[in-house]
Amino acid sequence: MTKQTIAFGCIVAMLMSAACGVSNSGDAQKCKGEVVASAYSPDSNVVVNFLLDAQGTPFYSMTFGDKEVIKPSRLGLKLKNEKGLEGGFELESQSVSPFDETWNPVWGEESEIRNNYNQLTVNLKQNDTNRQMSLVFRVYNEGVGFRYEFPDQEKLTYFIVTDELTEFALTGDHTAWWISGDYDTQEYDYTESRLSEIGKLSSSARQDNSSQAFIAPTAVQTALQMKTDDGLYINIHEAALVDYSCMHLVLDEKTMTFKAQLTPDAIGDMAHMQTPCHTPWRTVMVTDDARKTLASRLILNLNEPCKYEDVSWIKPVKYMGVWWEMITNKTHWSYTNDFHSVRIGETDYSKAKPHGRHGANNENVRRYIDFAAANGFDQLLVEGWNQGWEDWFGHTKDDVFDFVSPYPDFDVKALNEYAHSKGIRLMMHHETSASLRNYERHLDKAYQFMVDHGYNAVKSGYVGDIVTRGEHHYGQWAVNHYLYCVKKAAEYHICVNAHEAIRPTGLCRTYPNLIGNESARGTEFESFGGNKPFHTTVLPFTRLQGGPMDYTPGILDTRISFLGDVPHSHANTTLTKQLALYVTMYSPLQMAADIPESYERYNDAFQFIKDVAIDWQKSVYLEAEPGSYLTIARKEKGGESWYVGSITNENPRTATVDLSFLDADANYEATIYADGEGASYDKNPDIYTIKTQQVTNKDVLNIWCAPSGGFAISIKKK
Amino acid sequence: MTKQTIAFGCIVAMLMSAACGVSNSGDAQKCKGEVVASAYSPDSNVVVNFLLDAQGTPFYSMTFGDKEVIKPSRLGLKLKNEKGLEGGFELESQSVSPFDETWNPVWGEESEIRNNYNQLTVNLKQNDTNRQMSLVFRVYNEGVGFRYEFPDQEKLTYFIVTDELTEFALTGDHTAWWISGDYDTQEYDYTESRLSEIGKLSSSARQDNSSQAFIAPTAVQTALQMKTDDGLYINIHEAALVDYSCMHLVLDEKTMTFKAQLTPDAIGDMAHMQTPCHTPWRTVMVTDDARKTLASRLILNLNEPCKYEDVSWIKPVKYMGVWWEMITNKTHWSYTNDFHSVRIGETDYSKAKPHGRHGANNENVRRYIDFAAANGFDQLLVEGWNQGWEDWFGHTKDDVFDFVSPYPDFDVKALNEYAHSKGIRLMMHHETSASLRNYERHLDKAYQFMVDHGYNAVKSGYVGDIVTRGEHHYGQWAVNHYLYCVKKAAEYHICVNAHEAIRPTGLCRTYPNLIGNESARGTEFESFGGNKPFHTTVLPFTRLQGGPMDYTPGILDTRISFLGDVPHSHANTTLTKQLALYVTMYSPLQMAADIPESYERYNDAFQFIKDVAIDWQKSVYLEAEPGSYLTIARKEKGGESWYVGSITNENPRTATVDLSFLDADANYEATIYADGEGASYDKNPDIYTIKTQQVTNKDVLNIWCAPSGGFAISIKKK
Repeated sequence: MTKQTIAFGCIVAMLMSAACGVSNSGDAQKCKGEVVASAYSPDSNVVVNFLLDAQGTPFYSMTFGDKEVIKPSRLGLKLKNEKGLEGGFELESQSVSPFDETWNPVWGEESEIRNNYNQLTVNLKQNDTNRQMSLVFRVYNEGVGFRYEFPDQEKLTYFIVTDELTEFALTGDHTAWWISGDYDTQEYDYTESRLSEIGKLSSSARQDNSSQAFIAPTAVQTALQMKTDDGLYINIHEAALVDYSCMHLVLDEKTMTFKAQLTPDAIGDMAHMQTPCHTPWRTVMVTDDARKTLASRLILNLNEPCKYEDVSWIKPVKYMGVWWEMITNKTHWSYTNDFHSVRIGETDYSKAKPHGRHGANNENVRRYIDFAAANGFDQLLVEGWNQGWEDWFGHTKDDVFDFVSPYPDFDVKALNEYAHSKGIRLMMHHETSASLRNYERHLDKAYQFMVDHGYNAVKSGYVGDIVTRGEHHYGQWAVNHYLYCVKKAAEYHICVNAHEAIRPTGLCRTYPNLIGNESARGTEFESFGGNKPFHTTVLPFTRLQGGPMDYTPGILDTRISFLGDVPHSHANTTLTKQLALYVTMYSPLQMAADIPESYERYNDAFQFIKDVAIDWQKSVYLEAEPGSYLTIARKEKGGESWYVGSITNENPRTATVDLSFLDADANYEATIYADGEGASYDKNPDIYTIKTQQVTNKDVLNIWCAPSGGFAISIKKK
Repeated sequence: MTKQTIAFGCIVAMLMSAACGVSNSGDAQKCKGEVVASAYSPDSNVVVNFLLDAQGTPFYSMTFGDKEVIKPSRLGLKLKNEKGLEGGFELESQSVSPFDETWNPVWGEESEIRNNYNQLTVNLKQNDTNRQMSLVFRVYNEGVGFRYEFPDQEKLTYFIVTDELTEFALTGDHTAWWISGDYDTQEYDYTESRLSEIGKLSSSARQDNSSQAFIAPTAVQTALQMKTDDGLYINIHEAALVDYSCMHLVLDEKTMTFKAQLTPDAIGDMAHMQTPCHTPWRTVMVTDDARKTLASRLILNLNEPCKYEDVSWIKPVKYMGVWWEMITNKTHWSYTNDFHSVRIGETDYSKAKPHGRHGANNENVRRYIDFAAANGFDQLLVEGWNQGWEDWFGHTKDDVFDFVSPYPDFDVKALNEYAHSKGIRLMMHHETSASLRNYERHLDKAYQFMVDHGYNAVKSGYVGDIVTRGEHHYGQWAVNHYLYCVKKAAEYHICVNAHEAIRPTGLCRTYPNLIGNESARGTEFESFGGNKPFHTTVLPFTRLQGGPMDYTPGILDTRISFLGDVPHSHANTTLTKQLALYVTMYSPLQMAADIPESYERYNDAFQFIKDVAIDWQKSVYLEAEPGSYLTIARKEKGGESWYVGSITNENPRTATVDLSFLDADANYEATIYADGEGASYDKNPDIYTIKTQQVTNKDVLNIWCAPSGGFAISIKKK
């Protein structure tokens, strides 16, 4: 009898009747219900209860071992122009079934992923309407995913969600790492605070952005990472966000209860539904060790298997870009100062006077191609290659770019041929200016243009307010758009890396050509005033739970000049922390974001970026504490080398790297790129040491990290 | 010296300073301004004055001979988040220039159209903002078109119109033929009333429709036809509505002043503008003879010349359809009762049980092909051919149709081949359910599918509320969509006949593959309760001013049964009035809408439909009074035959057909299809006579029209 079947047996025994007996003092609806169904995780440690009160209102609760994680919390939906699916339910039937599979991602942190859960299905019927709704809970060892399902039925075909009532009633005033809720941007600094402090810190936690829609002072975004005073790591997010609007969380400070807050559409509706259908999964991860949170694949597992039969064309990519020089204002995306109003297809660039600072010019791109090819990169991103950058932002412009018209000084044919002759590809850039209709109208031609010129990956961008006007970046309309592009790109064998799009929810399992997303404050903000030193110790717990981020690390010359000689006009990391990010910030798409001159200057440190793998056989989480530090080791796919990254926040620390993950009876050579004595992110970011030593699986390395520092190690089998 | 140059000389002399001296008692802003510029029509009869008051507020006024048509009326725009373009202007410069051309439409009421006007350009500058705006007036013998132009300038690039202040201050309580204002439908019955009665008649003038957005009790739609007590025919409309929202008119009953009311977008904005740009033309036609209004080509002339170099693929079309049998509920668009929820691409129709009433089945379509081909038609429309009709309406469904998936009993390949073998084509049908994004996503494939199967014309439909949600059928967003489809269709050499789309404003001159539109209450409403007997005597003055209507006449069996045996369950015309509509309702796309059985039954009358031309060398407007009667004669293009149509409202009358338009010294044979004695639309619609007589240009025929009757004559040269 397996552990799973034991747990399964327990579940049946668990179906006792137990009053939930919760007594909250706040506004959240109190549960006087009874447990009518339960399920255990395969290891029996996580338990989910489903409850109904006397009015037929559904609730759920959750425990981890003997600790309560989620107190009885309301479930349900309010609907437009009809009675909500929020009460008056009776239990029609329930069932529990185990599931255990192992699958192989096209790319990932490991080559095999186990998907092992027990599923509780609770079928409800609303008595006076005869409408059916099911709650489905998948209980994993590291948490639970649950969703609402609406079967095909006579009494419910189309409905409009005006409010999702899902609550997450927490047990105390946990510590949280959060960004402010917003319907249009995630590019906020994280704040570490008690839950009770979110409201009063809200306004200072919001920085200006190109598109913003405030929700409420206590609104935060998912994935939300928390830690309880008794050592539980709790994470709330969602998985498989498809054809629904994105969920935010609004805290009731009196009850420490988060309530779901969906993203409204142009007329204030939250989701338009057609049965049979279901919501995304709402996820509550819980562990007693932060490393287990990072090791969990719960979000990916809740997504559907890959929909593509042939995935041979999907490859991880290490790339450089004609980009950081624009981000740091050395050159520009635009070509001329002649036009303050551009109409693509009408504005004649052939006669325009170049302003002389256009980055994507033939000569400069050739220089980058030479450098990227010589250093083993796969691709070179070129931004600002196409007409329209003189007049693209801030006016919800409709026909903003056409994605096929290069500037006069960008010879798209010759440059691609040149790149291909050197063994690399150019990477396409599609800034949409958030003009969704315009992008969709040009999409086929734009993708065909890529195929015709030998591109196979595109970085897309959604800067500014969404056009369709009234819609938000995280509403159902835009969510639908992003996936439409990914699926259409697959028809052309193109990989997509979408910036300013919806935050990932594990869809890369199903559509692995979605090789990257931004959806958080990336390295570009190091040039716009800086990210907090602890930023990248938080992201793996939050943003990265849904999928890889195109964080664009590798800024070796951290004294950047975009803002001129003002405080914090530098990356808030040491040089070797930038190297560590290639391991700690998992992505199959890794950029060396700095300019060639910086890599020439720090050529010895650059070696790590050239060496590090971007697809993995296995990952080992050696040390982890959100907001504080991370040490991760990964073994390359198809080889014997390991790479280790370790980072810290503004506090220096000494990391412990237990090499027992190495093969026994084997010898390795480790090259360690570490902060040097006196290094610090704000004063001496580029004091570093590189040393090589022989190691085995018996060794334990203790390596110092400077304030906001870190180290990287490459370990080659001998 | 030509008449035009004389008029031009007069204009210069007109530039006197004259106080406008208007004193209105109502809310409309009073003009205390002075005339600062003027222009005459080529025949000197129509004069437009441009005025500025002491605050720099612009006004215009208009006269016809010695009669005032438009009293000084305000001009200007309110803008979002900035000062409006409504006052503080000074005159920078002005100019008047004559224009005279003759052009040849691809198809039309005549083969040559003269475009002859004097253009007054008034360049204004707003003193405190340095923004520039021009008013351009084109003064024709039958009225004026004017528009706002915004040149390329430093101080004004992007702006958002929140209100267009354009007014039309009328001189009295004119008689008007109007439909209620609405942002989503034009399918209302016309009402004839005094202007002062519009408000109180408003609610009774609105019938239920699939998508409606009420504006205000005194709101009406354009083209609005009026008649003054002293015999002037005044018509307000717009021309060349491109990338702007549609204009409605709201009456201030105290001052008899109409103010422009644009159509809001999802966030309440009226138009998003980028300089250089301009508004559509606002048109005021004025004549002293209703026949001159019908003969005017002012709206077409205000549109730009044809944008296509090759127009050889654009042909007028006479067609039948598998359609009226659905409209009358004999058969249905849908295929099965199995599905209450359909997902295109997922729902499996191959196993569905047919309900047996699907009209677009192979056998039935073949029968229609045989009949249409045998009777000389060009095409056969087939609606309900594609999957999705079980679940397409009323839920703002997004992915509603894919336009390429036929029902199991519609063999698209075989049926097209069969039609082609008989010398005709099938006509495509694309019901979009107003889901604009979905249609655009499928557009290329849908058009390619047409090309692949030999279709070259599509009837598109926009039933229901617009998806993009929050947008209206007549907003800038949707206006942009309709033209996008027309232009893209041209790339595939496809002609478009769009139903429920924006009302035409003469764009068919520029894009002549826009061969039809609905945009008013068509013949289908004869099956849904009936059109008023005077309906088709109004449409040529209103709806048809902007372009042809796919009115779908030819219902010879007027006792239709959709509503069963209830009052008015019949077409409100006699049989021969249906024939007359082929002449009085000009369109290059004419349907014989009835079912084959009806044409077999009334085979002698059917002969006129088979004979009548659909493209014209020349049109002569013999008799016309809006709301009462029309008699029109047209000469076929490329031949010597003439066709005459005459209709009346519910009142019988005897029409006078002066045949002096025929060639002198030639003999003709006329076949007259007329109401018989005792005929009437409501009791004896099918009492008719057909007689043949010899005629010359000396003859004058007096022919009786029954209540809501009419007659048709074909005249062949011998």
